Amino acid sequence: MKQILVLGAGLSATSLIDYLLKQAEIYDWYIVLADIDEKLAHKKIKGHPRGKAQAFDVADSAAIDSLLDQKDVVVSLLPARFHDSIAAACLQKGIHMATASYVSPALKLMEKEIEAKNLIFLNELGVDPGIDHMSAMRVIDKIRQKGGQLASFYSFTGGLIAPESDNNPWHYKFTWNPRNVVVAGQGVSQFIKNGKYKHIPYHQLFNRILEREVLDYGSFEIYPNRDSLKYRKVYQLDKIPTIFRGTMRRPGYAAAWNVFVQLGCTDDTYVIEESENMTYREFVNTFLRYDPGKPVEEKLVDYLNLDPEGEVMQKLKWLGIFDNRKIELKNATPAQILQKLLTEKWALDPDDKDMIVMQHEFEYELDDTMYQITSSMVYIGKSTTETAMAITVGTPLAIAVKLLLTGQIQQKGVIIPTKPELYNPILDELETYGIKFVEKELIV
Amino acid sequence: MKQILVLGAGLSATSLIDYLLKQAEIYDWYIVLADIDEKLAHKKIKGHPRGKAQAFDVADSAAIDSLLDQKDVVVSLLPARFHDSIAAACLQKGIHMATASYVSPALKLMEKEIEAKNLIFLNELGVDPGIDHMSAMRVIDKIRQKGGQLASFYSFTGGLIAPESDNNPWHYKFTWNPRNVVVAGQGVSQFIKNGKYKHIPYHQLFNRILEREVLDYGSFEIYPNRDSLKYRKVYQLDKIPTIFRGTMRRPGYAAAWNVFVQLGCTDDTYVIEESENMTYREFVNTFLRYDPGKPVEEKLVDYLNLDPEGEVMQKLKWLGIFDNRKIELKNATPAQILQKLLTEKWALDPDDKDMIVMQHEFEYELDDTMYQITSSMVYIGKSTTETAMAITVGTPLAIAVKLLLTGQIQQKGVIIPTKPELYNPILDELETYGIKFVEKELIV
Repeated sequence: MKQILVLGAGLSATSLIDYLLKQAEIYDWYIVLADIDEKLAHKKIKGHPRGKAQAFDVADSAAIDSLLDQKDVVVSLLPARFHDSIAAACLQKGIHMATASYVSPALKLMEKEIEAKNLIFLNELGVDPGIDHMSAMRVIDKIRQKGGQLASFYSFTGGLIAPESDNNPWHYKFTWNPRNVVVAGQGVSQFIKNGKYKHIPYHQLFNRILEREVLDYGSFEIYPNRDSLKYRKVYQLDKIPTIFRGTMRRPGYAAAWNVFVQLGCTDDTYVIEESENMTYREFVNTFLRYDPGKPVEEKLVDYLNLDPEGEVMQKLKWLGIFDNRKIELKNATPAQILQKLLTEKWALDPDDKDMIVMQHEFEYELDDTMYQITSSMVYIGKSTTETAMAITVGTPLAIAVKLLLTGQIQQKGVIIPTKPELYNPILDELETYGIKFVEKELIV
Repeated sequence: MKQILVLGAGLSATSLIDYLLKQAEIYDWYIVLADIDEKLAHKKIKGHPRGKAQAFDVADSAAIDSLLDQKDVVVSLLPARFHDSIAAACLQKGIHMATASYVSPALKLMEKEIEAKNLIFLNELGVDPGIDHMSAMRVIDKIRQKGGQLASFYSFTGGLIAPESDNNPWHYKFTWNPRNVVVAGQGVSQFIKNGKYKHIPYHQLFNRILEREVLDYGSFEIYPNRDSLKYRKVYQLDKIPTIFRGTMRRPGYAAAWNVFVQLGCTDDTYVIEESENMTYREFVNTFLRYDPGKPVEEKLVDYLNLDPEGEVMQKLKWLGIFDNRKIELKNATPAQILQKLLTEKWALDPDDKDMIVMQHEFEYELDDTMYQITSSMVYIGKSTTETAMAITVGTPLAIAVKLLLTGQIQQKGVIIPTKPELYNPILDELETYGIKFVEKELIV
């Protein structure tokens, strides 16, 4: 009997645990789900004879040590910062490991030793990173196999609200970590287009958007997603003249969000004095010129050259940023204050569903003809607990664990799913869950 | 005989060494000047019988240890990052210390021990920080003594080119560390005006300028200088409704510099790929939209809404940022590339002189009347080696060392010059060197 340890019983655990428990009957597995909240773990195991819930504190290394005993693989759904120490423990005890997180620099350093011990450490097996790698590589390899020369690669992903639940002027709600949404894009974004490098500082990011249609789901706008250049190495596209990765929102979002960026409301690097006594209106005013004769709205409109009756101001007013309501957060950064307000306004309603949208666009040359392939996926969540985000993170990771335990992975070491032995079976099985890419090819 | 060790024989050492050697005759002192470049140290000591030049490597702690032996005070003109370890050595050996640099967090931690040993560690005794503290505190204390209530305090400083050497369209040349000029203002700037906090993100900084006249030296523009709020504590102005510190440039500078900020050319956090093969024109183009049909100049004008024939574009063209000239810097950050270009264009000519400008503006209430005091100082350098910057850093520090060695400082511990026992004699003596504040008072 193979033993699987799953660390963390949060949102993404549901689909993963359901999947593993189902397979456990077929393959003779036993699953221990450990979480700081033992009740939550019990809720997910639901008394299944092949599962067990256990309390566990990530700070208690002796507890982790005994949890690891006799396990064949550890799946960590904990926040990424905990993975390095767990990886080190797995390596020491000779246990395979799997996560949906990025390969960390510390893990990179363990790579050779992991390989030498014939271990398999699977990473980047969620949706983004994860499904993005797999779906892109499947098309890239197909183009290569027929001798095509890739000329450009665009890849867009968005975690959004489903059309049936889209009832606010931002066409956006929080469907994952709010903090990551507030600080998204900070730093520089880089890509290359027809051999020309492009660098976009954060304060210009939401001015530099693309627009796209995806299947029957209407229009999206896209802003550049940090460092696209590094994906040339990940996908072995070293010489590709154009590569661009972007984040999707509904049209109109970027122009309104840009107000917060321009003002400085997304800054998470300093604390505002007396923030606990401030109102949201005063908060906005701290970023505007001193002029007691003018209302805040008018100062904002003048400062950023907005239409006082336009859509951007409508969105801002709807959020309540001009309200004389106390923030009630002490020693808060601007980003924390903005997050507090957004968390109230962008919360999911009990019946809401979220949506994951992904689209890749490839151009390639073959026999003097230019072709374009568009590969698109839209997946809508089932509920506020079985979200599209949780399902598309947990399911590919679960399938990968099955491949590992059934001996279908030939690679050893630190692995991300860019090879057919992983992406083919995982993408095929994801289709049975409705996570399916639709491909269109045309001559351009 | 008192022994003084001076570490670092760079620009600011000249006036300091000249001053100390002259006083050495009167007070029976001996001065050791140590620098990694022994020849440079010899050049500054000029064979004076009361001075000695010595080679010294800051990385060699045994050498520092033996240099410290028998010394009464150590004056460090080294880059600020070296001060903490030297301070620790001075503390251990019971030697006083003096620098022109900011009090570091590490020095703060040694404060109690320094005080317990009855040692005097003088800090912030250059021009800014230094003369700014002293000249401001002299006025603030005077207002307090007569019972006035401070309503506002503005303080501006600029290290600029002297009018007689001002012959480029930027009205600016490098008169101190170029890197600090390129990255100036990064992070958030904060101040308070009539009780309203104001926060300005870096990308808005050069839009938020003030204008002032100073004496007969014409107009200056001023942008906020980082955290003005912390000076409430430094100057004991906890409840002051308005406090603002700014950096001075000549009019027109901010609008043109803002182009670099808006593009992202001052970013020092990432390296541009293939920078060594890029031209300055290509560098600028990496920040602009892809549009091969449009020249770079036109794209820039459109992007940032500039007047194609206006002064901003004139300044940019004069710098050569549109030239097809190779950058020839490998693995360079945008800030490093910009600095390389500016260092060529903003270099001092052999006959150039620099200029330090400082102006404080106070408003206070006394007997139901509002008064305004303006205190202004302009000091012009003597040459490209005896710069205003070097003299106004080295001279107050030298005078402070005299005060220390002649027993005129009653305070012990970690000290900055905000008390009369330091600011009065130093400011008085600085006047004999032509470093003089002109005060105007009027009823408003």
